[in-house]
Amino acid sequence: MDINSNYKNLNESYLFSTIAKKVNEFAKTNPQNRIIKLGIGDVTLPLCSAVIEAMHSAVDEMSRKETFKGYGPEQGYDFLKSAIQNYYKSHNVSLNMNEIFISDGAKSDLGNILDLFDKNNTVLIPDPVYPVYVDTNVMAGRNIVFIDANEGNDFLPLPDYSRKCDIIYICSPNNPTGAVYNKTQLSQWVDYAIKNNAIILFDAAYESFISGDDLPKSIYEIENAKKCAIEFCSFSKTAGFTGTRCGYTVVPEELIFNEMSLNKMWLRRQTTKFNGVPYIVQRGAAAVFTEEGQKQIHENLNYYKQNAKVISDTLDKLNIKYTGGKNSPYIWLKCANNLNSWDFFDLLLNKISVVGTPGAGFGKNGENWFRLTSFNTLENTNEAMERFYQLFK
Amino acid sequence: MDINSNYKNLNESYLFSTIAKKVNEFAKTNPQNRIIKLGIGDVTLPLCSAVIEAMHSAVDEMSRKETFKGYGPEQGYDFLKSAIQNYYKSHNVSLNMNEIFISDGAKSDLGNILDLFDKNNTVLIPDPVYPVYVDTNVMAGRNIVFIDANEGNDFLPLPDYSRKCDIIYICSPNNPTGAVYNKTQLSQWVDYAIKNNAIILFDAAYESFISGDDLPKSIYEIENAKKCAIEFCSFSKTAGFTGTRCGYTVVPEELIFNEMSLNKMWLRRQTTKFNGVPYIVQRGAAAVFTEEGQKQIHENLNYYKQNAKVISDTLDKLNIKYTGGKNSPYIWLKCANNLNSWDFFDLLLNKISVVGTPGAGFGKNGENWFRLTSFNTLENTNEAMERFYQLFK
Repeated sequence: MDINSNYKNLNESYLFSTIAKKVNEFAKTNPQNRIIKLGIGDVTLPLCSAVIEAMHSAVDEMSRKETFKGYGPEQGYDFLKSAIQNYYKSHNVSLNMNEIFISDGAKSDLGNILDLFDKNNTVLIPDPVYPVYVDTNVMAGRNIVFIDANEGNDFLPLPDYSRKCDIIYICSPNNPTGAVYNKTQLSQWVDYAIKNNAIILFDAAYESFISGDDLPKSIYEIENAKKCAIEFCSFSKTAGFTGTRCGYTVVPEELIFNEMSLNKMWLRRQTTKFNGVPYIVQRGAAAVFTEEGQKQIHENLNYYKQNAKVISDTLDKLNIKYTGGKNSPYIWLKCANNLNSWDFFDLLLNKISVVGTPGAGFGKNGENWFRLTSFNTLENTNEAMERFYQLFK
Repeated sequence: MDINSNYKNLNESYLFSTIAKKVNEFAKTNPQNRIIKLGIGDVTLPLCSAVIEAMHSAVDEMSRKETFKGYGPEQGYDFLKSAIQNYYKSHNVSLNMNEIFISDGAKSDLGNILDLFDKNNTVLIPDPVYPVYVDTNVMAGRNIVFIDANEGNDFLPLPDYSRKCDIIYICSPNNPTGAVYNKTQLSQWVDYAIKNNAIILFDAAYESFISGDDLPKSIYEIENAKKCAIEFCSFSKTAGFTGTRCGYTVVPEELIFNEMSLNKMWLRRQTTKFNGVPYIVQRGAAAVFTEEGQKQIHENLNYYKQNAKVISDTLDKLNIKYTGGKNSPYIWLKCANNLNSWDFFDLLLNKISVVGTPGAGFGKNGENWFRLTSFNTLENTNEAMERFYQLFK
């Protein structure tokens, strides 16, 4: 048996293990310092009570013969798909039920969707980037072209017609930069994709952090996007489901390539290699869309947004350039004193006991940039940013 | 963008949709007949109380900040892996913790594991077969060789050294035939795999139906199997988790191909394309291994086994040849009067209002054979087999 030798081309990432090592060493030699982590990439608030109640009730259903649920539809129960359909309606996107696929999270589907595409497609990925876009394509042996996201384009690169690419990754609001495309910019990507017969993989995992109507929460708010885009969403950051695992992927029926329907191909992929999301979890996810659920998750989202504002207000006062913070849980700032991002990391750790994530860990354009997140407590975020202000004022 | 054109080579299966259509038509024209379905491929008893209690308690943990769980390890929590490690010890198999990977079910992992293997490997699949073994390899464009499982070999084919294959599927206890390999037979497969540098994908989803110590529940009960086999297990049939979704895959550290560790490759695959099983579900799965949990799941398993015995006793009385029934929820019988399997289906439906599954739906060697399952109630199973006895006595 021969292995898939593309795995030999994967790079190990030492970003988070290096951070952990540095933090542990600092903690050991400075036990009196209270370290505050603004590098957290995971939610910290518990599940809201509407979700908890729905899950308790679903667990009870599983305990009785009359209400027990065995295999469900691989693509998800109608009660959840219909709630998602209504959610899309609320931002004026009309979807058919069979265009919505419930998943165990955006990460799984972003990786697995590549099963549908030929190996010889060229992939366009922005730099800096969420590393799994790169690794999943390296595993398949695809040619990857990077597009620069940098200060010059406010970390929102636009299409370059001199390069023909087939599979395009767009994450908006972006991880790690927090930058968000507006409708005009996103339209340019849709135009490019249609002209080049390309597919856009639109990662909307952070859409619930967008406030106001002018920025698109879904790529389908853009005309013709249903002809060229698959959208990946998640309850992870929206409703604190990082450990509960649920997401959804939209594959429009209009997506026809080589005379094949991507919607039908994905249905076949999922019914063959997947067996659906736990009934209990789907009931919990559906509760997110009830009136109570919406109220409660927005309380949590507002808490994180308030933290983001504490960070961005401090950066404003210090006149430090950044993206994100307003429609994203991430704040991507230029390292003060033109430091490189690891030196800036060391400076924050050693001088003010604050931990963030060096931008260089996300790609070459991340050098001299730094990521802070809004997932700590308000108290800690206030304290960390006060220390930050004192250091750089 | 070009699609993965291998999807064009997939065959549609009409097996279960044809059955449903025939049953619906019969029900419409014969409303007075009580139809009994012995074709059910899903569990019907609810989750046991140990699992229910553990999941309620885990839901409560998710409701409080102090006990809330965000992202867990992609490969599963130690509390569950350690319970599985102990379970393996009980049948004398010693595993390292990092060889156990928690999954959302055997079907997902059986499909996704193929990511690790080169496209040009030759795949050996028994016929008749669980269709996803075939479809997942067609999707990747691999060459498939079928090996005959038939009356002549009691549906337990042994290696043919004249054919060199790289990836070998073994399902024991088998779906659909219920046949179970003994240790001597399984050793022959392990020998063949090692001599041919092949990998065995061992589907042990039905291992909990094996009673007694002489038949292997795990391929690792066979010497040298850790050098050539990956094992896939599931809580679906063991503990009624078909709608709750949890399984586990064992990838031994000894598996080295092309100087690469399959264990490390699978870890990389899962950390890149998967985000773990819900914490709540893992707590439920761990409860299966408690003393109470074991007692309760065995009550359920014994209920299904009793149904299987009702079916096999009837076939014994009628002198009808079959496999399974003793260490499997499936009974695979030779169609009476040498009927082909669809004619036999029609006969049972029309004469005694009993529904099963025609063997031809699982491959060419399924012709003239028929699958009955033990997942209906004892009362219905008794009634169906009494009708069956009267028809063929």
